[in-house]
Amino acid sequence: MTITTRTSQPAVGREWRLRRRPQEQVRDGDFEMVDAPVPQPQPGQALVQTLYVSLDPASRIWISEREGYRPPLPLGEILPASALSRVVASASDEWQPGDLVYGPTGWREWACIGRDTKLNRAVMSIPAQIARDTSFPLPSLLGVAGSSGITAMVGLDQVAAAQSGETVVVSAASGAVGMAVGQIARLRGCRAVGITSGADKCRWLVDTLGFDAAIDRNLPDWREQLADATPDGVDVNFENVGGAVMEATLARMNQNGRVALCGLISGYNQGGAMAADYSPILMKRLNVRGFIASDYIKLWPEMQTQLIDWVRDGKLFHQATVVEGFEQIPATFNRLFDGDKLGKLLVRVAA
Amino acid sequence: MTITTRTSQPAVGREWRLRRRPQEQVRDGDFEMVDAPVPQPQPGQALVQTLYVSLDPASRIWISEREGYRPPLPLGEILPASALSRVVASASDEWQPGDLVYGPTGWREWACIGRDTKLNRAVMSIPAQIARDTSFPLPSLLGVAGSSGITAMVGLDQVAAAQSGETVVVSAASGAVGMAVGQIARLRGCRAVGITSGADKCRWLVDTLGFDAAIDRNLPDWREQLADATPDGVDVNFENVGGAVMEATLARMNQNGRVALCGLISGYNQGGAMAADYSPILMKRLNVRGFIASDYIKLWPEMQTQLIDWVRDGKLFHQATVVEGFEQIPATFNRLFDGDKLGKLLVRVAA
Repeated sequence: MTITTRTSQPAVGREWRLRRRPQEQVRDGDFEMVDAPVPQPQPGQALVQTLYVSLDPASRIWISEREGYRPPLPLGEILPASALSRVVASASDEWQPGDLVYGPTGWREWACIGRDTKLNRAVMSIPAQIARDTSFPLPSLLGVAGSSGITAMVGLDQVAAAQSGETVVVSAASGAVGMAVGQIARLRGCRAVGITSGADKCRWLVDTLGFDAAIDRNLPDWREQLADATPDGVDVNFENVGGAVMEATLARMNQNGRVALCGLISGYNQGGAMAADYSPILMKRLNVRGFIASDYIKLWPEMQTQLIDWVRDGKLFHQATVVEGFEQIPATFNRLFDGDKLGKLLVRVAA
Repeated sequence: MTITTRTSQPAVGREWRLRRRPQEQVRDGDFEMVDAPVPQPQPGQALVQTLYVSLDPASRIWISEREGYRPPLPLGEILPASALSRVVASASDEWQPGDLVYGPTGWREWACIGRDTKLNRAVMSIPAQIARDTSFPLPSLLGVAGSSGITAMVGLDQVAAAQSGETVVVSAASGAVGMAVGQIARLRGCRAVGITSGADKCRWLVDTLGFDAAIDRNLPDWREQLADATPDGVDVNFENVGGAVMEATLARMNQNGRVALCGLISGYNQGGAMAADYSPILMKRLNVRGFIASDYIKLWPEMQTQLIDWVRDGKLFHQATVVEGFEQIPATFNRLFDGDKLGKLLVRVAA
């Protein structure tokens, strides 16, 4: 196998490594940016250059001492993250230079992908007609047309089995997953109610995304507003936040309602304080299921095809907050938790 | 329709009514014992005399201000409870004097049953051959061969779908439901581990009931003992207690484990403090389902037939703590929460 390349690449690239475990918010010095040789693709591999790095709340768990979806990330390791990348050199039949791929390559500028490791089996190729379609919003492939949209579909369809005519409440509604949940719930014929913070985000959810209602949880009477917005109760809660926000939704749920538990972001910076009332589960016979989209990886290609079609047809609106510069990744990370963003949070690393 | 009677009955009987809502434990004066005329059965009804009143933790919710399975019981009402009763007069083709029935007749000595109300549709007749079988332990019809056993079967089979070879952990294991859960889990081929309080109860669970292991949560190292007793993790948690006990079990659960949430008794006397960590649901993709056996009422006759067979065949062991005297009901009620009982807690009202 010969290596085919389209562009020359530098000998050295940058990567962010975990230096110490953050206490509460991420701070200067928790990560260290280091230079590393750009790897050469081995047979069956391809070298990719990172275009966009996806910032996701679950990463906050991986860098804590908490046993989460996976063991805590060892100090000194590159932070795992999804990224949209371009193939620049290939020693694989599967990828050609210029191809766009999406996968868990982490906080680094260059990476080799292949099919030889479990991690790399999660790499997905972006269809060529999408990669060439200049009108298609590429960053959406990390958002509503990528893992965020897939997470929304898994939660709504596979976990909660949301049915047309039902009421779906989603928290962190203006975030990457939340904005996809509300829009897809509407496409499924559901009533979509979002909980977010701030009047601007509420207007955006209703006016731009088509949510049926949006609740500003900064208002003193937000619980009453949630009750008004769910006159027939709540059948499905797509939960991203936990704590008091989740409790308010659980209090509105109908008997035999379903909770797709996707995140507990309100506790991620608090050392794992993720407690909330269990009594609604009991009294209302709720079905609460935690899930992670990667458990449904066999369904991803089919889901992504649907999501891309929806984006191209104007049925699924994409929104990202994009910060420029690889060196900005850690500072940008905190915006996941302080609400200072709209839609997917991305760092653009290369053009 | 003529009224057939076998025995004469008094003109007046006693009943316990809710006088004020208890704070924490039930206290003198929360209930009031009053005399009331013994009702005459109307066409389609039968008059029953209460033999045993069942005391159940869920009643503590009904008499609080909390919106539980049903709205709070209004002051002045008779406390709802299941009871085993004998028909003494009948104006119905369905019941004859001498029949045993089981139903939600409440804290009173005499009641009329019929098929004309929702409540009364829950009345079940005890098969005549059981009622006549002097070797059969009648009180078990309110315990392992009645609602407690049915609750255990619903949770294990319908809610958690426990499979042979799996590990089941049940809390409040020496209570009416818990003792049935462990025994039925064993009959299903599961490994049964119980959590209770006190060395005597632990020995009884293992030696008499056949649990694979029992954990005394009064011991300082009970969490380590739970870990040792579940070497393959926990597949099913039949949860009766909530709080720290539930959290310890959730910490041992395997990915995609199931929680049949039957009760949160540790919070019932605390004004509704039923909070616990939600993060294991998320990280381990657990399926947590609240349930109440009455939602499965169509399955009850079939389940009760099975349970009665198991009791008669010596495969299901019955145990009750029986207190004598209708006037003892409120004072006995607190023994549900302080651990001072074994198995089903009953008050015997008539011979």
